[in-house]
Amino acid sequence: MDQTGMSTTSPKPLIESDRVEGTAVYAANGHRIGTIKCLVIEKVSGKVVYATMSFGGFLGFGNKLHTIPWEKLVYDPSLGGYRTDITEDQLRAAPTFTQDDDWSDRSRERDLHEHYRVPPYWISGF
Amino acid sequence: MDQTGMSTTSPKPLIESDRVEGTAVYAANGHRIGTIKCLVIEKVSGKVVYATMSFGGFLGFGNKLHTIPWEKLVYDPSLGGYRTDITEDQLRAAPTFTQDDDWSDRSRERDLHEHYRVPPYWISGF
Repeated sequence: MDQTGMSTTSPKPLIESDRVEGTAVYAANGHRIGTIKCLVIEKVSGKVVYATMSFGGFLGFGNKLHTIPWEKLVYDPSLGGYRTDITEDQLRAAPTFTQDDDWSDRSRERDLHEHYRVPPYWISGF
Repeated sequence: MDQTGMSTTSPKPLIESDRVEGTAVYAANGHRIGTIKCLVIEKVSGKVVYATMSFGGFLGFGNKLHTIPWEKLVYDPSLGGYRTDITEDQLRAAPTFTQDDDWSDRSRERDLHEHYRVPPYWISGF
């Protein structure tokens, strides 16, 4: 997986945000577990750091949104969607954010990164 | 203006892509010249490099889409939108991209950056 969660094998170096939104996400076992609702961008660096995922009733999550570190998603052309190695158990236990949150609570972000065992983007220079 | 085109003065360090989409863009004279349709992201780095703008008939552009280097946009909280120093003449003469383009033609991107006098993101490490 590359650092950004986006495949580098595509001949197209750029992608529009509104094409990513709505794209399916698949678990390691190939099951479709939800869709990407939007990307979350760090203002200072202009970098994509999270994707919010709608599970749409998959896995019994109802319509809750989950925030996933962007590097946990990798585009798989054969699936026409993103693949993640996040497990169902990890998703069920994950800290949740909603679109009404203001993203200004770094301690909650820290919890999220620890949960998914991904180095925080604001420290690693990711 | 910061390197990303996003104001660093906001207390919110992160922004959702679907909140940026549809946001108004204002010229230096305060006139509303269009809205952001989507962000264009470099897959390898995960960075926002362009915004596509819909002019919606403003300035006589009809409904054409224009691609603007992201660093030419800066969020202005007092306007509730992005401000740009791009002039009407620059816009009229600018190279155009459409959502059907595959973004794989670097020479066209080079023309775009030269037109707006912005260092290319793939050289400057922007």
